[in-house]
Amino acid sequence: MADQALDVIGFGNAIVDVLAKCDAAFLDQFGIPKGGMILIDEAQAKEIYDRMAPGVEVSGGSNANAIACIASLGGRGGFVGKVASDALGDIFRHDLRAMGVEYETAPLTDGPETGRCLINVTPDAERSMATFLGAAGYVTNADVDENQIARGEISFFEGYLFEQPDARAAFVRACELARKHGKRTALTLSDAGCVERQFEEIVPFVRNHIDILLCNAAEAAAIFGSDDLAEIAPKARDLASLTAITRSARGSVLIPGEGSPVDVPAQAPEALEDTTGAGDAYAAGLLLGLARGYELGRAGALGALAASEVISHFGARPAQSLEDLAREAGLV
Amino acid sequence: MADQALDVIGFGNAIVDVLAKCDAAFLDQFGIPKGGMILIDEAQAKEIYDRMAPGVEVSGGSNANAIACIASLGGRGGFVGKVASDALGDIFRHDLRAMGVEYETAPLTDGPETGRCLINVTPDAERSMATFLGAAGYVTNADVDENQIARGEISFFEGYLFEQPDARAAFVRACELARKHGKRTALTLSDAGCVERQFEEIVPFVRNHIDILLCNAAEAAAIFGSDDLAEIAPKARDLASLTAITRSARGSVLIPGEGSPVDVPAQAPEALEDTTGAGDAYAAGLLLGLARGYELGRAGALGALAASEVISHFGARPAQSLEDLAREAGLV
Repeated sequence: MADQALDVIGFGNAIVDVLAKCDAAFLDQFGIPKGGMILIDEAQAKEIYDRMAPGVEVSGGSNANAIACIASLGGRGGFVGKVASDALGDIFRHDLRAMGVEYETAPLTDGPETGRCLINVTPDAERSMATFLGAAGYVTNADVDENQIARGEISFFEGYLFEQPDARAAFVRACELARKHGKRTALTLSDAGCVERQFEEIVPFVRNHIDILLCNAAEAAAIFGSDDLAEIAPKARDLASLTAITRSARGSVLIPGEGSPVDVPAQAPEALEDTTGAGDAYAAGLLLGLARGYELGRAGALGALAASEVISHFGARPAQSLEDLAREAGLV
Repeated sequence: MADQALDVIGFGNAIVDVLAKCDAAFLDQFGIPKGGMILIDEAQAKEIYDRMAPGVEVSGGSNANAIACIASLGGRGGFVGKVASDALGDIFRHDLRAMGVEYETAPLTDGPETGRCLINVTPDAERSMATFLGAAGYVTNADVDENQIARGEISFFEGYLFEQPDARAAFVRACELARKHGKRTALTLSDAGCVERQFEEIVPFVRNHIDILLCNAAEAAAIFGSDDLAEIAPKARDLASLTAITRSARGSVLIPGEGSPVDVPAQAPEALEDTTGAGDAYAAGLLLGLARGYELGRAGALGALAASEVISHFGARPAQSLEDLAREAGLV
């Protein structure tokens, strides 16, 4: 593995999802915003889990889900993220490696358990998340491997994890190494609240270190202070050499540093089941296309195709080979 | 909890299922019989898991699935089974308690990890199982609680776990306590191979200790040496005061110690998705009905209703309230 070229290396939260049904009152009781995400500590995680319905466990994590999509698209993916030396950590590692992802981050041996996201699903099929980061927050410079970064076309960072000071330092270090080796960097803003909480830190980070910025409309509004594309475009060009803004069923728009924005239509899913993971899947297709040197429209279409598959079933990782779908669509 | 009357107390393997897709060659490679179950050790579990596709984790165990159905039917269930002090053990315990099941067995603190069943699903949707019992096999007399047994109408034992000598001794002890307190006992034969391997031990156990014997047609043939109901009936009457034989879509037949056999029609599912857990769900309905003093046909119909729900979706535990369904059907 250690001399293999990689398309995309992801840096993100290593998390196992716990999914269970609930009613709206349950969310109110624990202050979980409907359709949103809050961070909780170990005691809160125990309290909420004790009251949750029987669940199903499945590997998750925003960035890790994107890297799983990279692998499903036939790309070569790497992942950097922290689990503990426990059963959930073993499951997380297995599920990435089973897809052919290079994942060598040493587990945390003296600290909290593997992180988990308690996902409560209301009868309207909406998912509301309470995340106990656990070991996931303990990414440090020691987890950054120059050899790996030198082999990766694009290093891709998760905004959620940027909130942890040690992880933030590790992101900066990884970006410096990517630059040193002539490689590109990408960041997803993850969540509008995440942008608002760390606005002063994230803007210079993007300006100084990030080539490709990914966000949805709400996150774009949070970082650019506008939801008008004409106002956003010059600000985006000032910040990154490419900005991708996803707009759900209205498709995405790609704003390059020079030249006109490119509109990418959304691809309608066979059936809309669960939108969780749509942004991660889109990021995977776009970044894999860019890593392979596709022109913007084709790279965006690969993102739209991946997102379309992931929202057609429950669960944030692909249920069938994205590479097969992309081949049928003539995109790879 | 400790003074609550219970309808059914289950004694079985405390297991977490790991489900993943595979092709037929994968099963051949590891000698896993298609549609069947083999026991594996920790090294084999690691070897098979390392090669498995990404998976989903969900609480399982034959008897524990039945007790989950008891709870879903509105019954009061208890469970006795052994997990380790680890994350999978916490998940197993949570999922039973979240349904209101009384589950107080002390976890194993010095021994193997929580048991798991590696379930590989071939493209024809058939499930083939390789079970690493781990802590589940460590049930002993110390886990038998006379107070709990005295509160339970029926103590229900899993044939799979009967293969462990210490658990077998615990089963005998629990049966003696049930008898002492005027309560009934039930056993599922679990698997034809399981009957064949321990024929000399299981026949006297049933004759001396078990009131209600549950089996499918293959297990009935293994223990009674015939698949002809006319030949089976007198042998069944000799062995137990009630024998229930399930025959998939042909329904079940109940053979009481005295009187004529009662035919119970199967209830067709809305859609047949996954037959895993059908026998456990049937057992739950039947035993809950018997615990409540229903006549045989009504108790059997409650079993058929529970089985029908469980086979209409993926997963061996009910996806909706069995009590609601039973109420609509006029069975409770």
